[in-house]
Parts: sequence; structure tokens; C-alpha cells
Amino acid sequence: MTSRDGYSWTEQTGLRPGVPSIGVITPVTNVVSSNVLYDVVVIGAGYCGLTAARDASLSGLNVLLLEARDRIGGRSWSSNIGGYPFEMGGTWVHWGQPHVWREVSRYQMQNELKNSFDFSYGVNHFQLNTAGGSSTMSHDEEDSLLASALEKFVNVDGASGRNIMPQPANMFYVPEARDLDSLSAQDRIDAIASSLSPSERAVLEGFVLLCSGGTLKGMSFLEFLHWWAICGYTYQGCLDYLITYKFSGGQSSFAINFFREALFTKRLSYAFNSPIQSVNDMGNKVEVTTRDGRTYQAARIICTVPLNVLSTVSFNPPLPDGKLAAIGVGHVNQCVKVHAEVSDKNMRSWTGVTYPSNKLIYAIGDGTTPAGNTHIVAFGSHQYHMQPEEKLDETFAAVKALAPGKMDVQRLVFHNWSKDEFAKGAWFFSPPNLLADHLEDMRARHGNVFFASSDWALLWRSFIDGAIEEGARAAMAVKTELAETGKISPQL
Amino acid sequence: MTSRDGYSWTEQTGLRPGVPSIGVITPVTNVVSSNVLYDVVVIGAGYCGLTAARDASLSGLNVLLLEARDRIGGRSWSSNIGGYPFEMGGTWVHWGQPHVWREVSRYQMQNELKNSFDFSYGVNHFQLNTAGGSSTMSHDEEDSLLASALEKFVNVDGASGRNIMPQPANMFYVPEARDLDSLSAQDRIDAIASSLSPSERAVLEGFVLLCSGGTLKGMSFLEFLHWWAICGYTYQGCLDYLITYKFSGGQSSFAINFFREALFTKRLSYAFNSPIQSVNDMGNKVEVTTRDGRTYQAARIICTVPLNVLSTVSFNPPLPDGKLAAIGVGHVNQCVKVHAEVSDKNMRSWTGVTYPSNKLIYAIGDGTTPAGNTHIVAFGSHQYHMQPEEKLDETFAAVKALAPGKMDVQRLVFHNWSKDEFAKGAWFFSPPNLLADHLEDMRARHGNVFFASSDWALLWRSFIDGAIEEGARAAMAVKTELAETGKISPQL
Repeated sequence: MTSRDGYSWTEQTGLRPGVPSIGVITPVTNVVSSNVLYDVVVIGAGYCGLTAARDASLSGLNVLLLEARDRIGGRSWSSNIGGYPFEMGGTWVHWGQPHVWREVSRYQMQNELKNSFDFSYGVNHFQLNTAGGSSTMSHDEEDSLLASALEKFVNVDGASGRNIMPQPANMFYVPEARDLDSLSAQDRIDAIASSLSPSERAVLEGFVLLCSGGTLKGMSFLEFLHWWAICGYTYQGCLDYLITYKFSGGQSSFAINFFREALFTKRLSYAFNSPIQSVNDMGNKVEVTTRDGRTYQAARIICTVPLNVLSTVSFNPPLPDGKLAAIGVGHVNQCVKVHAEVSDKNMRSWTGVTYPSNKLIYAIGDGTTPAGNTHIVAFGSHQYHMQPEEKLDETFAAVKALAPGKMDVQRLVFHNWSKDEFAKGAWFFSPPNLLADHLEDMRARHGNVFFASSDWALLWRSFIDGAIEEGARAAMAVKTELAETGKISPQL
Repeated sequence: MTSRDGYSWTEQTGLRPGVPSIGVITPVTNVVSSNVLYDVVVIGAGYCGLTAARDASLSGLNVLLLEARDRIGGRSWSSNIGGYPFEMGGTWVHWGQPHVWREVSRYQMQNELKNSFDFSYGVNHFQLNTAGGSSTMSHDEEDSLLASALEKFVNVDGASGRNIMPQPANMFYVPEARDLDSLSAQDRIDAIASSLSPSERAVLEGFVLLCSGGTLKGMSFLEFLHWWAICGYTYQGCLDYLITYKFSGGQSSFAINFFREALFTKRLSYAFNSPIQSVNDMGNKVEVTTRDGRTYQAARIICTVPLNVLSTVSFNPPLPDGKLAAIGVGHVNQCVKVHAEVSDKNMRSWTGVTYPSNKLIYAIGDGTTPAGNTHIVAFGSHQYHMQPEEKLDETFAAVKALAPGKMDVQRLVFHNWSKDEFAKGAWFFSPPNLLADHLEDMRARHGNVFFASSDWALLWRSFIDGAIEEGARAAMAVKTELAETGKISPQL
């Protein structure tokens, strides 16, 4: 099936909207009657909503899953082109990500990981294109350079962040961490600038922009420190957790299991192409209305709409001030992710940073396609932003600038997350102060409406893992509450 | 409630069998009729059986949970004495252990971790008592010494084990790993002996015996390498994952959530004090018989009996040769774990290794008790084994030898896992070749009987995490199979 989402380009076809994905669900709905009071309506079929719908239906609740798009997966989905998966959004996983891996092992997918890196091909180096010129170095030298730069960046406590954030699932366990959240990445770089070599500074800025998809001034230093902590407080950990292991069949091959298991209970109703207009909490039940005027009622709602999109849904009674303030601030990630298939097989072992000023900053050889071409994945951020489908010449130029003379582009594949009305950006990344001021506000329920999203997860916030964490939290809360009110089988 | 398991000693009471635990369940059974065909009987209420029973009952199956003891938790349980938990078996957890942490966050226990280490007290050093005499060093020096020794031990591939075991949940992903499983720890130490200082060798041997509870000749080198890999291939990771974070309320405060959630479904029947005599698979159903002659029937069995105990259950039809061979080999862990409350408050910051020849090898200050005493936890292994309740003088002597003059013992608490007929040892640790030859045999089902145990988990084998991994795997398999046969709500 082909999703409306995403773009692809080849010389033969030109630029085309929509790419094939196994995450597209048909029929688009299995709802037969509109006159049903559900136990819970789950808004959104990303990993968070899929988990919530699955866990709730497994525990005996009647569930309606509503999704604006034509597919599952939200900000993590893959396009399978000629048998080869291109990850349009969230990609990498690791066995140390608890909520992801619990599902990987439960669905027996432990042997379906492949490594994005393969350093056995000819162009086996790291290329740094920066203001001072272009240079290449071995991947070991790349690792040393990045590790050195990042260690200086995070070392606010003489212990590489371990003292200030010893329990990353409890981010403000050390109260001083809250004060640190006023710093931007730029503030921290300014404070350590004299200790950084020009190369260290270039790769450091490139790497933190890769993580945030934002700008140096707009991104929270503390949120980066949180990433660092969950990655085990080392650069090697960042590599292992953030950018190494992906599913051989693509993310949609993982997500589909959640949907199928929920459907298997026979307690899951669903409707795709169903963006939400409003949520009206009447106290004894809640009514949701889609943009095309359909209404559904349930005892509880689990709303997984991302922070940057929540303002498009009308809530009655209105959301409380703290949540509105968080929505008003929003998150800063406007990552640009572009896949390029290039004809040079040997680029498989290449990695590179081109910074500043190029619109794609960080890229790696990510695979070999069925045609024998190298699959390059490249990332830009809000710092030097572009809309990749708008000016294709600019997009080609940005790809080619990563490794001049070596990027003979055969195919492009991408999803423009900034112009996606149901995402308004990529994975959550906090600006300064948002987490210190409003993490609990974002996590709070509002009457019969539970809010669940990776955007406010506690551990792997912003990641697929955090989405599953949050979906499980919401389903557990709804199940427990409905059981206590006598809806489902009660007490010890 | 007081369990039959465990021992405590104070001067006032002398040695007493049985310790209080919130894991003791009353009433001991809720079974009212013996004339029921269950969907599944789960044998064993450790974390694996609790997870299997919970997941199966959540998914709509009627479950009977049978447990030989008077308590849940199996090889992981805590005795709460005067409000202070002593961990009788499995203790430490980490947010990078996927199956554990999924449950920690689902039960909202993220803020209930405390750190075993506290280096803010007076006796703030590491003490090494070895053949060459006794010495003390800072904890930073301790870490450097252990890291150096362990790096030499694991570095069989020039990459600290990363190349030979790049995907620890897929242990034999690199086929050469299988060959390595013929090595014992002693073999590997012999190979690197000339590179080790006497102190390095002492702490290395002490640490690997801490991990295995076995002997250097009896323990598999590859299994240690697996531990190293799941801990992120660093000594710091070993510290973080293996021995740092524990539940402020004790393990039983975690385990009880699984039991309560299962009971909450109203589909859980259970009976404690019910050791199993035999399992008779009749093809269309299975009958289990307890030692006291009760029989129960079910469509499927999930057997979580540990490897070292499986020979005490009679299976009809007999188990296949591969599984019998694995049972015949068994695992090698005869860890001795002893808690000592000592009057010196400042010992809170002490750690030590006394090796070779003492019957307790590795110990740390693990907490401060309500009386203001220091809680020391000490570990011995099969290498210099003792039965701590048999000769109390020997036990006191082993504790005192860890830090001569500083161990004024006020209380002892322990569980003798070697003499526990339902464990026959502590956590699984493989001898050479068992995993290479029989991991799949141990994991295989036998007719309608599914075998699930941390002893043959793929990722955190031997840990609480592995028990939950396996319980979830078994429940998922049974649920899927019974649904396919029409027992519960089917298909997409």
C-alpha cells in the first residue's frame, strides 16, 4: 500500500508525493456502528497510541483507535521500496531501551537487528567539511574527536554528568539539575569555547544539532545531558543507542505487531483518516469529534497528539494553564532527514559532518540497496533549515556538499516533518526551561482525558521507547480506574 | 508474615530459621474446586512464573499458579526486618534492563531506587586482603584496578568483546563465539596470567567468582563475556548494572505488584506449599500432580522450575535427550550471600575483596539500618564454599576476615541457596559448553509444556530481567496458540 506521507525522487519519476509502506492499514476502518460507548478512545496510532490501544484491549476494555493519517507509526515509519526499508522518522533501537526491547523480545524479533555501520568498504573514513576546509580521518579518530568534544560539553560536575543526573528516569533527582535547565547549548558552548579545538567545536555543534534538530540557542543543554545519561554517560553509548541498530524489515515491521495483537483481541475498533477537531468532557463520559463531523463517546480518552499539535484540538473544559503554557512554548525539533541512494558502493563505509552552513549536517552510509547502491542518510536541523521538496536543487546541493564528487544521487526519499500538520516537527526536543517548568504539566491528566506521548516520557523521552512507556502508563491508569469504578473485573 | 525460608541471627535470639517477608501470601490458596480444566497451569511463582501468570490472565486465560514455597519471588525476595529490607537473593536493577524497567515504569516505581554505594562516610576505601597482605586504596583506585584487570580478561578480540559478541541478545551471532564456550575462566586467566599484577589477579578472580558463584575451572568464560556485553562492555557498566540500584522497599515490594495485578483479573487461581511431583501430558490436556497428591489439569503448562531442580519433576512423556543432557550438566552457581549488620556507622563507605581462601570474597557497605548500624553484604562462591547456618563460628570468622577489627556483628541474615531444594543454587551460571551445546534445548517446549526460566533467557540470563523476559515469552506463546485453537478470541 502507498501512504500519502513522504516523498521520493528518481530521475525516471521525478519528485512524487507518497511512498509505499506496510504501515498503511486497509480497510481504513472496522467501525460499524456510531452508537457505541467505548471504554476508551485512543487518539493517535503512533507507538504510544498503538501501545495504549493494545494494552487496553488486552486488559478487557473496548477500545476505539482514531488516527489522522492513513498509516500507523506516527513519527516512526518506514517506506519499503523494492524490498529495502527507508526509515522516514525514528529508526534506531537498542536492547538497553527497556520499553522497546520488552516488545522486541515478546514479538521474538531479537534476531532482526542490523547494523547501520559497515566499515568494510573502500571509502572507509570520516569526512569533516568545516570553515577551515575539508579533511578526512579514520573512524577511530572520528570517535576520539567526538568523545573529547562531548566530554567537555557535558562535564558540568566533574563526573561527566553522573553527579548532576544520576537517575535519568528521575531527571530532577538532584535539585540543582532544575537550575541547569536555563542553559541553552549555545550558553554551554560559550562557557567551554576556549577549551575546544576548531574541529572539536565543529563536530560538537554538528552532533548536538543532530540530536535536537533545533538551533544551538533554542535547545536545552539539560535535555542533551539527559540523552547523554540514558546513553550511559559516554560517546560510545551515544553511538550504540542512537544510531547503530535498526530493524532489518523497517520500523513498520515492528509497529504492525502492536496493531495486530490489539485487533486479535476483537476489542479494537479503529478508524484512520480521522483527525480530531474537539474533545468534550461531559464528566460521566467524553465525546470526541473528528474534523469531518463524526462523534464518538467513551468513558476515558487517551490523547497521544504531540505537544506541537495539541493547540489544533479544542478541549472543553479548556486545558489548565500549565499545560497551555507548555503548548505555547512547544518543542524545537525541525530536523530534516533525507535518504539518498548513491551509485558508489564504497561510500557504505563513509561518515561525515559538514558544518556550519550546509543544510545537511551529519550523514552516514546506512546500507546497500537492492540495486547495489549505497544508502546515505543525512540530517539537517533548524539551524540551517530547508524544506527538501520545495527546491530540489537546494536538496541535491546539500547532499552533494557532504562529500563533493562522491554523491551521484540515484534516488531521494524523505518525509518533511516540519510541514506535516500532524507532527509539526520531528521527535521532541526541549528548549531551555520547558522541562523544569512544565514536565509535570505535560504529563498530567485533565478530567477523563489522559495525555500520553514520548514528548513527556521520563526515560527515553523523544524516542520510540518513550512512546511505548507512555502508552503503557496511560492504559494501566485507565484500566485501573475503570476497574475501580466497577467497569471491569475488580479487586483482590 | 514470616516465610519458612531464610535465617537470621542476633545475640538475643540466636540463629533462627524463617524471616519476615511481604512476599508471603495468605490465604495460601484460593482454589475452591479441583474439578477445573485450566487454560494454563504455571509452575513456580518467581518473577518468571509471576509474569507468565499475570500476562496469561490479563489476556483472558484462566490460570492456576502453583508454588512450592510459602512466598512469591523464587530466587529474588526480601526480608523486611524492622522496616529495613535485606535482599535474600536477586537485588539490583537498572533502567537499561528492559524487562525489569518496563515493569518499574508501568508500576510507577521509577522514584523508588536507592544506591547501594554511599561514599560519604568515614571508612571510605577499598580494602584488598590477599596472599601478599592487606592494603587499602581509594574507590577510584579500586575502579581502575578492576577495570584494568577485567579489560585484559575480556579482550579476546582486540575490541573488549564487542567484535565477538556484538549483539548480546543473539549470543552466537558471530559463530566463533560458540567455539569460545569451551573455555573456563581459569583457562582464560592462564592465558593472560603474565600480564596481570598480583593485585589485578586477586580482584579479577574475586570479581568473576562474585558473578558466577562457582569455581574458576567450573565457570564458562563466554558466559562472563555475555555479562560484560549486556553491561555495555565496560567495568563502569558492570558496576552500574550489577550492584548499584535497588528498590527502597525491597524486591518483594516489586514482585507483589505482578501477583496483585494477576489476581485483579479474577482469572488467577493459586496454591502455595505445592511442590510438583509429576507432569503428565495426555495430548489433549496435561495433568500436574503435587507431592501431596493433588492433581490439576490444563490445556498447557508453563514450567518455570530452575534447571538444577528439573530432575526432581517426573515428566511423561520423558523429556527429550537434549534437555535431559542440559539438566544432567546443570549450572554451577553455589553463591553464599550473607548480610551482616555491624555497629561501625562509618563502614557504610567501605568495600573489600578478601581472596583467596576466605569463605566470603567480595563485600560492600550496602545501607544504614534503622538502628544506625552499617549493613554489609558479602558474597562467597563454590570456590571456598560454606553452609552459613551449619557452623556459625565459621560464618562469623569469614565476615570478620573481610575487615579485621571492624566487623562487630550485631545481626546476620541469609538464605542458604545451596541447600534450598527448590533452587539448588543461586542464579544460573553456565559451565563451559552448556550454552553452546544446549541453550536451544533448554528453551524448547515439550508437547504442551512450555519451559520458561531466567536460566535460559537470551538477554539478561540469570537476572530478574531474564525471568520476566521468559515469563512474557511463554505467556505470549500460550495465548497465541490457544487463540488459534479457538479457545480465546481469534484472528485479524
